[in-house]
Amino acid sequence: MNKKGLAILMRTKMRPSSAFDPNKVLSPPSTDEAKRMAEESEEKHSIERSMKHAVTGENSISSHKLLGSDNTGREIQRVKESMHSAISLNKTDVLDDVLNDFSEGFYSLSHENRRELLLVLAKDHDLNRIQVRELMKQYLDLELPSGNKGERDIEEEGLLSTFYRMEKNLRHALKPMYEVLFERLNTHPGGLKFLSVLRADILSIIENENAASLRALDSYLKEKLITWLSPASLELHRITWDDPASLLEKIVAYEAVHPISSLLDLKRRVGAGRRCFGYLHPAIPGEPLIFIEVSLMKNIAKTIQEVLWDDPPLPECEATCALFYSISSTQPGLAGINLGKFLIKRVIELVKREMPHISTFATLSPIPGFMKWLLSKLAYQLKFDEAETSEVSDSLKESAAAAFKENILEPEEEGVLINSFRESAAGKSGMEVLWNLLKSTNYEWTKSDALLQAIKPPLMRLCARYLLKEKRRGKALDSVANFHLQNGAIIERLNWMADRSEKGLAQSGGIMVNYIYMMDSIEENAQTYFSTGHINASFDINGIVEQT
Amino acid sequence: MNKKGLAILMRTKMRPSSAFDPNKVLSPPSTDEAKRMAEESEEKHSIERSMKHAVTGENSISSHKLLGSDNTGREIQRVKESMHSAISLNKTDVLDDVLNDFSEGFYSLSHENRRELLLVLAKDHDLNRIQVRELMKQYLDLELPSGNKGERDIEEEGLLSTFYRMEKNLRHALKPMYEVLFERLNTHPGGLKFLSVLRADILSIIENENAASLRALDSYLKEKLITWLSPASLELHRITWDDPASLLEKIVAYEAVHPISSLLDLKRRVGAGRRCFGYLHPAIPGEPLIFIEVSLMKNIAKTIQEVLWDDPPLPECEATCALFYSISSTQPGLAGINLGKFLIKRVIELVKREMPHISTFATLSPIPGFMKWLLSKLAYQLKFDEAETSEVSDSLKESAAAAFKENILEPEEEGVLINSFRESAAGKSGMEVLWNLLKSTNYEWTKSDALLQAIKPPLMRLCARYLLKEKRRGKALDSVANFHLQNGAIIERLNWMADRSEKGLAQSGGIMVNYIYMMDSIEENAQTYFSTGHINASFDINGIVEQT
Repeated sequence: MNKKGLAILMRTKMRPSSAFDPNKVLSPPSTDEAKRMAEESEEKHSIERSMKHAVTGENSISSHKLLGSDNTGREIQRVKESMHSAISLNKTDVLDDVLNDFSEGFYSLSHENRRELLLVLAKDHDLNRIQVRELMKQYLDLELPSGNKGERDIEEEGLLSTFYRMEKNLRHALKPMYEVLFERLNTHPGGLKFLSVLRADILSIIENENAASLRALDSYLKEKLITWLSPASLELHRITWDDPASLLEKIVAYEAVHPISSLLDLKRRVGAGRRCFGYLHPAIPGEPLIFIEVSLMKNIAKTIQEVLWDDPPLPECEATCALFYSISSTQPGLAGINLGKFLIKRVIELVKREMPHISTFATLSPIPGFMKWLLSKLAYQLKFDEAETSEVSDSLKESAAAAFKENILEPEEEGVLINSFRESAAGKSGMEVLWNLLKSTNYEWTKSDALLQAIKPPLMRLCARYLLKEKRRGKALDSVANFHLQNGAIIERLNWMADRSEKGLAQSGGIMVNYIYMMDSIEENAQTYFSTGHINASFDINGIVEQT
Repeated sequence: MNKKGLAILMRTKMRPSSAFDPNKVLSPPSTDEAKRMAEESEEKHSIERSMKHAVTGENSISSHKLLGSDNTGREIQRVKESMHSAISLNKTDVLDDVLNDFSEGFYSLSHENRRELLLVLAKDHDLNRIQVRELMKQYLDLELPSGNKGERDIEEEGLLSTFYRMEKNLRHALKPMYEVLFERLNTHPGGLKFLSVLRADILSIIENENAASLRALDSYLKEKLITWLSPASLELHRITWDDPASLLEKIVAYEAVHPISSLLDLKRRVGAGRRCFGYLHPAIPGEPLIFIEVSLMKNIAKTIQEVLWDDPPLPECEATCALFYSISSTQPGLAGINLGKFLIKRVIELVKREMPHISTFATLSPIPGFMKWLLSKLAYQLKFDEAETSEVSDSLKESAAAAFKENILEPEEEGVLINSFRESAAGKSGMEVLWNLLKSTNYEWTKSDALLQAIKPPLMRLCARYLLKEKRRGKALDSVANFHLQNGAIIERLNWMADRSEKGLAQSGGIMVNYIYMMDSIEENAQTYFSTGHINASFDINGIVEQT
């Protein structure tokens, strides 16, 4: 290929950038819908899920629907039998075959059949409660050791060994039978990956129905996965242009924060002035479980454009800041297992060692839940106004609801907004004006400097409020904020018009945030956040919120 | 360095070959001693321990005695406190420091102080029995779900979720508190290695005293290590001359079957016509947990000399047999965790794939317990004769003991033996002659063809009997035999004068054995051996034993 041909190839768009559908977020919600949306956005609390919009993995339920289209009852019966064998057989020459049969059979099942199979696994291969109760009764009959020292030591040793033995038996009896299947799959080639797919399916089922047995199955499998994926068993790998195409392909497929547009874009992200690190597990070769992209910069970037298009990049020796601008998980089945925390810590250590001139470790992060939260908040408040004008609400409802009524705009902000949009704002409240502006998918307001100036103060202030004050179960409502805060970062700065891409505008009105990792205080911040929910933020951001 | 200088360096002896002390085995035992020896040799049932005579690891107790010599009470108090903090602290910025303090402090302690500390860990950081009993009482108060289907489904879901929740709580309450320490160390740099050293210490303590709490500690730690060291988390690495010297050094240090004599020897073992594979764990880089040495041959070797000195090696394309001639574990703290089985299976698969012309997978293995068993057997029988001639035994003892009396030589073998050693055998029994021959450490009998011919039939027969019939708890008494049999191998052939080294003569009178791995029947053999103790052997070997 000649030079020109290569240049064209390198710049060819890799996939449509419309994988993210802003309409899903911006369709005008009713009050009920708004509530549901708010709940939903709170539900998706884990970084892994919120970061993975586009790709769900080649083995997920949906991609196998076709294969499963000719499933009859026979098919699932066969898979059930191989599952049963995989649990009950002693180790024989056929065990490997049985495990293969089971996993291949499972992949070929339809969503409905997978659900049925998982319910069988959860219910019929649970623990033996009768045996557990019998052991407990025996245990309770034992007298507790007195704890006296001295001549009774030997006697006590004997009594203790009875305790140890019975406690060991109880631990084993309390393990569900499906643990055997998990353990066997874990040592089987391809088994760990399969378990991650299995869990992704369980998660997608319990999102829609409340099955206690499946929740217990999920909780148990999650605990096992956490053990197997301990950081000690993960290898930190620096991904470069010299890596196999099969691995680089995974980076393109799973990059969920700032989609990779072309080969050239990919090459830059793993080239000079950048770093890309992945966590690899020996049992899942050539596919990082999670990866992070870093840009070496002079200062903490204020917009994603300067990160993605700093052409040519800064000479590495001049950098003083390592900016984490993307972190993506590749396995939906590992949701809730925080590998990112260890990855970030190890990357910081490594960069510090290799480049002592770098002293600042920061992120430029999306705020994926801001616009959803704001729109549902606006919609909820507008319902009150509607109810008031139409006078259909009875007084009881009204008085109960009044407690939740709030003008989320400051008087000054409201004035500027109504002034700036005079023609369309006639007779409307500031919140209505804001709602109309934000819900439209052509982002008219971003195309005029005057409109931008009018909308900036309320949006920046509400965004700071969202990040610092909006919580669920004592933790930050925004999934990415929660992720970095629990890792020990602090909120440093909000950046206006930092991501003008459709996705950036739809998620957060184009605002992005810098989190900062200060090595000296990472663990202390994480600890405070964990125990009290306190969110550490810079003086400036605290100021924006407190002006309210 | 010139060529000649290099040649000298490559041939320089790496360490004295006297690391194995034959006197320890061959000192004439009294009856009691013989019994104890037999028990001891049975105790050391794990391949890891029996294979590790020479090196016990740089962090073992003994090598740190010097460091601990100035230990006062203060020193152990400090380590105790850091251990306590490592368990009880919530995750804070100091946790890493605390774990470092604890492991460094532990390394610096004397054997006696380590013992004290481990007892504190086992006893004071055990589980909370009062809480466990409380939870059990609550659990037993619950009514078991009826298992009826139909309209009560929803009610049952609710009841089940109570069961799931309480069972989860019980599982957690039944975990000893020291699990926290193990888990934290596992995710701490250097922690997995430290845990392996910790377990090696526990094992060396419970070998000498019966402490139920330490046995429980060991059993729990072993279970955790088995999970963390699942084959899925281990990387199979082919070790070559291109590997770092720091890794190759480990091979020299830990090769316990056939010590590596010089750099040239090492280079051959990882060069053409050979293979060396190690299992590496990401958390213990540059140090295989276990490694295996393979020679590519035309036929199954009959002597170790032809394996170690086949100069030049066979062209690899002409090989039809992969001969495993050494397998060594580097971590005494992983005793009883069978990594070798998975290693052998994976190596067979890999070699088969890379070299389809290789169809035989066999070993040339030592028989480490044979001479010990035979000498204790002879000593035991000779005590009877002594008792008879000195007439000191009372009749009760005699009649009870008579049941165990046995001439372990065939009449024909006895005749030949007495004939061959006429001058020294005057008035002696065949067993006495044999005892006198075998107990001497100059191996006179190996220096004359006539003597070799006379001693060969009884030694070969008794060796076959030892391998096929002598068991402990239903498993082969010989540790290496037990290892290969539980992996699914069969006993193929005994080889006379296969290892004439001092170590080979001392362990097994120079006899070595070939085990064969047949891919089709590995799992079946392993299963039969596991469930019935049946030892699969070739027609020939079965014949030798049955001629009795």
